[in-house]
Amino acid sequence: MQRILVLNGPNLNLLGQRQPEVYGSATLADVKTLCEQTAKNLGVQLKFSQSNHEGELVDALQAAQSDFDGVVLNAGAFTHTSIAIMDAIAAIDTPVLELHISNIHKREDFRRHSYVSSVAIGMICGLGVNGYSLAVRAMFDHLEG
Amino acid sequence: MQRILVLNGPNLNLLGQRQPEVYGSATLADVKTLCEQTAKNLGVQLKFSQSNHEGELVDALQAAQSDFDGVVLNAGAFTHTSIAIMDAIAAIDTPVLELHISNIHKREDFRRHSYVSSVAIGMICGLGVNGYSLAVRAMFDHLEG
Amino acid sequence: MQRILVLNGPNLNLLGQRQPEVYGSATLADVKTLCEQTAKNLGVQLKFSQSNHEGELVDALQAAQSDFDGVVLNAGAFTHTSIAIMDAIAAIDTPVLELHISNIHKREDFRRHSYVSSVAIGMICGLGVNGYSLAVRAMFDHLEG
Amino acid sequence: MQRILVLNGPNLNLLGQRQPEVYGSATLADVKTLCEQTAKNLGVQLKFSQSNHEGELVDALQAAQSDFDGVVLNAGAFTHTSIAIMDAIAAIDTPVLELHISNIHKREDFRRHSYVSSVAIGMICGLGVNGYSLAVRAMFDHLEG
Amino acid sequence: MQRILVLNGPNLNLLGQRQPEVYGSATLADVKTLCEQTAKNLGVQLKFSQSNHEGELVDALQAAQSDFDGVVLNAGAFTHTSIAIMDAIAAIDTPVLELHISNIHKREDFRRHSYVSSVAIGMICGLGVNGYSLAVRAMFDHLEG
Amino acid sequence: MQRILVLNGPNLNLLGQRQPEVYGSATLADVKTLCEQTAKNLGVQLKFSQSNHEGELVDALQAAQSDFDGVVLNAGAFTHTSIAIMDAIAAIDTPVLELHISNIHKREDFRRHSYVSSVAIGMICGLGVNGYSLAVRAMFDHLEG
Amino acid sequence: MQRILVLNGPNLNLLGQRQPEVYGSATLADVKTLCEQTAKNLGVQLKFSQSNHEGELVDALQAAQSDFDGVVLNAGAFTHTSIAIMDAIAAIDTPVLELHISNIHKREDFRRHSYVSSVAIGMICGLGVNGYSLAVRAMFDHLEG
Amino acid sequence: MQRILVLNGPNLNLLGQRQPEVYGSATLADVKTLCEQTAKNLGVQLKFSQSNHEGELVDALQAAQSDFDGVVLNAGAFTHTSIAIMDAIAAIDTPVLELHISNIHKREDFRRHSYVSSVAIGMICGLGVNGYSLAVRAMFDHLEG
Amino acid sequence: MQRILVLNGPNLNLLGQRQPEVYGSATLADVKTLCEQTAKNLGVQLKFSQSNHEGELVDALQAAQSDFDGVVLNAGAFTHTSIAIMDAIAAIDTPVLELHISNIHKREDFRRHSYVSSVAIGMICGLGVNGYSLAVRAMFDHLEG
Amino acid sequence: MQRILVLNGPNLNLLGQRQPEVYGSATLADVKTLCEQTAKNLGVQLKFSQSNHEGELVDALQAAQSDFDGVVLNAGAFTHTSIAIMDAIAAIDTPVLELHISNIHKREDFRRHSYVSSVAIGMICGLGVNGYSLAVRAMFDHLEG
Amino acid sequence: MQRILVLNGPNLNLLGQRQPEVYGSATLADVKTLCEQTAKNLGVQLKFSQSNHEGELVDALQAAQSDFDGVVLNAGAFTHTSIAIMDAIAAIDTPVLELHISNIHKREDFRRHSYVSSVAIGMICGLGVNGYSLAVRAMFDHLEG
Amino acid sequence: MQRILVLNGPNLNLLGQRQPEVYGSATLADVKTLCEQTAKNLGVQLKFSQSNHEGELVDALQAAQSDFDGVVLNAGAFTHTSIAIMDAIAAIDTPVLELHISNIHKREDFRRHSYVSSVAIGMICGLGVNGYSLAVRAMFDHLEG
Repeated sequence: MQRILVLNGPNLNLLGQRQPEVYGSATLADVKTLCEQTAKNLGVQLKFSQSNHEGELVDALQAAQSDFDGVVLNAGAFTHTSIAIMDAIAAIDTPVLELHISNIHKREDFRRHSYVSSVAIGMICGLGVNGYSLAVRAMFDHLEG
Repeated sequence: MQRILVLNGPNLNLLGQRQPEVYGSATLADVKTLCEQTAKNLGVQLKFSQSNHEGELVDALQAAQSDFDGVVLNAGAFTHTSIAIMDAIAAIDTPVLELHISNIHKREDFRRHSYVSSVAIGMICGLGVNGYSLAVRAMFDHLEG
Repeated sequence: MQRILVLNGPNLNLLGQRQPEVYGSATLADVKTLCEQTAKNLGVQLKFSQSNHEGELVDALQAAQSDFDGVVLNAGAFTHTSIAIMDAIAAIDTPVLELHISNIHKREDFRRHSYVSSVAIGMICGLGVNGYSLAVRAMFDHLEG
Repeated sequence: MQRILVLNGPNLNLLGQRQPEVYGSATLADVKTLCEQTAKNLGVQLKFSQSNHEGELVDALQAAQSDFDGVVLNAGAFTHTSIAIMDAIAAIDTPVLELHISNIHKREDFRRHSYVSSVAIGMICGLGVNGYSLAVRAMFDHLEG
Repeated sequence: MQRILVLNGPNLNLLGQRQPEVYGSATLADVKTLCEQTAKNLGVQLKFSQSNHEGELVDALQAAQSDFDGVVLNAGAFTHTSIAIMDAIAAIDTPVLELHISNIHKREDFRRHSYVSSVAIGMICGLGVNGYSLAVRAMFDHLEG
Repeated sequence: MQRILVLNGPNLNLLGQRQPEVYGSATLADVKTLCEQTAKNLGVQLKFSQSNHEGELVDALQAAQSDFDGVVLNAGAFTHTSIAIMDAIAAIDTPVLELHISNIHKREDFRRHSYVSSVAIGMICGLGVNGYSLAVRAMFDHLEG
Repeated sequence: MQRILVLNGPNLNLLGQRQPEVYGSATLADVKTLCEQTAKNLGVQLKFSQSNHEGELVDALQAAQSDFDGVVLNAGAFTHTSIAIMDAIAAIDTPVLELHISNIHKREDFRRHSYVSSVAIGMICGLGVNGYSLAVRAMFDHLEG
Repeated sequence: MQRILVLNGPNLNLLGQRQPEVYGSATLADVKTLCEQTAKNLGVQLKFSQSNHEGELVDALQAAQSDFDGVVLNAGAFTHTSIAIMDAIAAIDTPVLELHISNIHKREDFRRHSYVSSVAIGMICGLGVNGYSLAVRAMFDHLEG
Repeated sequence: MQRILVLNGPNLNLLGQRQPEVYGSATLADVKTLCEQTAKNLGVQLKFSQSNHEGELVDALQAAQSDFDGVVLNAGAFTHTSIAIMDAIAAIDTPVLELHISNIHKREDFRRHSYVSSVAIGMICGLGVNGYSLAVRAMFDHLEG
Repeated sequence: MQRILVLNGPNLNLLGQRQPEVYGSATLADVKTLCEQTAKNLGVQLKFSQSNHEGELVDALQAAQSDFDGVVLNAGAFTHTSIAIMDAIAAIDTPVLELHISNIHKREDFRRHSYVSSVAIGMICGLGVNGYSLAVRAMFDHLEG
Repeated sequence: MQRILVLNGPNLNLLGQRQPEVYGSATLADVKTLCEQTAKNLGVQLKFSQSNHEGELVDALQAAQSDFDGVVLNAGAFTHTSIAIMDAIAAIDTPVLELHISNIHKREDFRRHSYVSSVAIGMICGLGVNGYSLAVRAMFDHLEG
Repeated sequence: MQRILVLNGPNLNLLGQRQPEVYGSATLADVKTLCEQTAKNLGVQLKFSQSNHEGELVDALQAAQSDFDGVVLNAGAFTHTSIAIMDAIAAIDTPVLELHISNIHKREDFRRHSYVSSVAIGMICGLGVNGYSLAVRAMFDHLEG
């Protein structure tokens, strides 16, 4: 049975309350429920977590090496600034799929560059919270693959 | 019943033969079959086409306004050079989802900028030909909404 | 009797329906009528055409060498990307006047650079569809001049 | 009866004597006569003035708010350096049309950027002194609406 | 009674000992006393805190949503690198005023860009530790409005 | 008794009428009254003036050397273009505090660079016309300090 | 017997008439004759074609995979703008030699970058129409080699 | 007796397992042993630590002010992104020597810029884990020197 | 008898008092005396003037067309910002020699670019006030030339 | 009888031993023999030389003015850094043809810019050592005219 | 017995006399003695040389291929400008270690880029003349290694 | 008695024959005579030399430390590329005056940056060969000064 980690970065705990015109009105709890439902349908074991601390995300990615078969990562703002997270992904064998709720290519210039992209297997963005469900499925397909 | 157009740009007719280490060994015919299967599962009417001519892609996008409910677009090289295609997408109401087989963020610098992104609803990339199946499903979900 | 070609590039066939807050509600047929009226007032023979294909615009400009005394060109998106059109203008003796419906200097950065400008005699922009009438008159004056 | 101000920036008082290969041999007095003739034909009240002082041009634009219905502005070198003139245009309701005798897009790089463009309704350039006549007419059409 | 949080970023705990020619000789304890005095004079409830951890600052800003009416933020080095802090400010309704002890515009190039600025209501800089007193007063005035 | 000059640059005479969504509805006369009130409270002698002419601002700054103890300068558009004003500030011993009504860091790119900043003691921006009152107080503190 | 395709891009059909000070007075028919003569001398089968349409050049390059042993390509303006042509060259096994009549390194900045160069085996430029003869010979040597 | 701190940044705990073609197969425990041996030979007291958290590294550097005579710092990814670490080094008197296992000048562009370099006494890079031994010796010489 | 104008730009009236470590302690009156002495030695008629107003310098340059045989211009800060002054020099036949007291190539980046240079016959800089004497002599030689 | 100089820059004496995957296995002696054979076939007098010293290459180019009718120049690394060599070519009337063994457009960024190109008649690159033979022939054709 | 070459570039013969605040007061003769002592301790054969001529340094590096097992190179100013030296290092098998007396990352921008770095095994900088001793030891370890 | 060295860089030995429209028709021998005459008038001992070799110019500048009181340097192309020459000037106490025959600010972009400028006392350019005479006089004044 596949084990998938869905890992969320800074300020995603405010989902639903933060700029709803950009991120929608679903909360992170809603998203967790959505992911768990998808996982159940696919027969996948899923963990869902969030942190505002770069170091904790690095720790979580390092630990995923032994604990998970794949990671869906919405690194939030750290997507654009954290070489440490990029290095952590590069250091582990577990495949990582990059996810964004909004279409980062339509926003400020500094959101167009992603350190995560250069080490992730692929990216899904702009599809709202439904992107989480697609990402879990995409990782499932990739691992089956 | 939803109508979805899967539109492919230049050199995608060589899929399977062109740089298989980047694009995999499936041919465009294989991809068409995959999309049709996904469409059948979802109960969607699907058209699949390809062109090496920028003008024909502009024509096809303009026509999609009346003939389709959604477009999945892999614009190939025109992703990075065609403002005309970008303007065509902006000119129609039909939603367009951007798709790439490879992770364009890992390749040459000039492949990192996409004119399509600024007018598409979202992007899926780096998931190989399976991305086509996910994109059709994502457009389906988007239209169901 | 002067012969003037009014040549339109990609997506201008959607005029009136595409982003009316930018381009206004007049259709390309309306613009053609306006140009013909102006031409009639000035005693000028006028041809009005449009294409979404870069190659066809290059062909049309090359043919203008023998068939027309002046060209009013709204190259649309190709204004910003087509060196081929720029080279065609440079290769013929027929003077070309650049025209834009919107003020391209107020829009996205990539619309601020025009390959056409470096070979056109001048530019009129931002005056809406009335700019077509002014451009025909300006070309008339230039040829008389 | 419409009231139009034709306002000229630095060194335009030398017209006819300054680089005639770029600007032609007509003097600013000739241009004034041409504008007055066009204004008479259109039934417009016209004022024509020039200054080498940025501050005086800012003052003139501010005063145009109450004294004129439209402004045709050839800001000369200040086109490329004066945010103060740009701010003055933005601060008044009177529409301003940007005018240049030469095609500024064909000249030195620093002449390609115009602060005026981002607040003017449109631009006419490269049509020689005849551009003044066209600009007065274009402003007339714009005000007629 | 207004509640104002004065939040300090990395290395500000070394104030008085770190580069006194830039930051002066007052310690952070002195600054806290100054802020409390100002708050007392204005009849404002004030909390003063500092952290070297980006994640803790994000947490504190998120919590300010419910606990404070306004925030005075000297984000130190994170001013120039933290999109996470910028996103946290954008995600909450509590107004944030940016503060710097030194004039960041006179220093290294990388200190001239502030992610905080694009979401803060305003900035005070270069006025030494007295800037803290002014910032508390400015936030008070802003909230009184 | 301290003598403080509050000096305003181009287009600030239009305050209240120019882009009120950016600058608010208070007029420059209102601002003058506000400054005079603050000065009276602090026991400071205050002069308040405005000019649209760069040369007059340079003259005024040079004269401040002997006539004032401190200058609060809102240089308006010249903030971003005038090295002459910057040189004048550098040439005199009188301290100058930079002031902006809006948060210049949130606006067009060319408003983010300030020649004044590199020679001013500090900057206050984004606090609306109340920033004038704070700036006079900040200069008072600085001179006392 | 080797089969070599000499493929020409936009505006090369105007050779001899377009900017003769840059491109010389020989026509494309003259160049075709020259190439055929060289081919005859070397015992090579040669096809010579031209198109103003990017899509047709992509089609021709794709077809060359099975029909030719080598391609001499003067892509004209598309050299600098067409990633689609670059991708087509990368997708086929047939070697492609880049050719330019003028020395593109001496001309406008935008002509200095060639997408073709990064996938061609080499480049010959600046030798006028005689470069065609040398290029056919160079391709012959390469294929023999 | 000198006291030297060897401080390691994010992902260095994975040494030996992370990209061995870049970093070699020695683990961080091996490196610690190597450093301790060198320290013993030189008669130096040595502490060796690692953290994935930027804030903890800032704390450790601040504490080094009183607890150590010199620091050897391999800041890992934070080398290129952390102004907070740079500021901490600048704020303390303890000399810091920058160390990298790989030659950072041969890698991605973003690894070529080091915030640490501008405040460190020097840099050793590209010499593998043996660089640790050399760095401890270099710091010893520097403190003796 | 040659007539030479020595024209000085903004803040040069403060010479001797402004940053003496850069500009020396001689006043502008001293410089005038030095120029007059040199002129007398060479048998040249000399006028010496200064203005802080860009418009007045433009006026003065335009007037030099008829009143002087050569101009020595120290445009001060306007050297780097005034296209209007550059255009005035280009518009007149009178040769202009650029002069700077300090070596502008050693100072801030924005002082390294000179609009004056592209239209002046040459430049003398870095030789202190003695540069004025050399410049008058150089202009004399040039006119004798 | 034509006299042609084949001039080689730094490190070309190591040909055959230096990065054979880039430059092939032929030595410079082999290349010399190849050139001499080509020259013999064409009835041309040929000199072949190499130097690692920029000054000697400048000397050789200056001397070519009187001693040779044409120069084939492979300037090696100096292609990208030597304005002195560029100036020497510009200073003599003897035509110079630029040659590179590898396709410099496919390599590091700094190898894409050639100072030689802006003064050479043309360039041949990417054709291996056979390019020398083609270059001698191209120069022969050029001189024959 | 290992043979190590310590090679010095331009102006290092002035060591001790040139900017002692940057480079210290030891002369190159002192440095030679220091290197010889280190070599003696390690049982290494050492040659120490210096040249102001780029070509001689290229020659020396080429000769090192057969005469030395390792090179310690302080290329001085050529570090930043010489692709020829970089190419020579790439062309030989002998490992080269880059050395700088000062911390080049703290100096002018143009000293931050090193052509040598991209082909050297590593770099030691900022440790004063003691860096020579460390570099010889580091090369010794590398060769033993 | 003052001793002045006039030192010339690459290709200046071709003066009079190289691009006379830029550099005039006087030869370097003429320039030497002119300098000697000026030196005689001023009572100065003068040496005049030229080299195409960067290393020889570095050697000459180093030797000037003991042999000359001042240097007039026309470094030719090395002005723009040689940090080694810049370092040599910085390393000696002898003042160096930068000289150019043409106005380097009017030419190609790469001629606008001078490494010499940042260490020379000043620059004279654009005054033709007469600039040599002025430069010798300027150095004389500087040394007297």
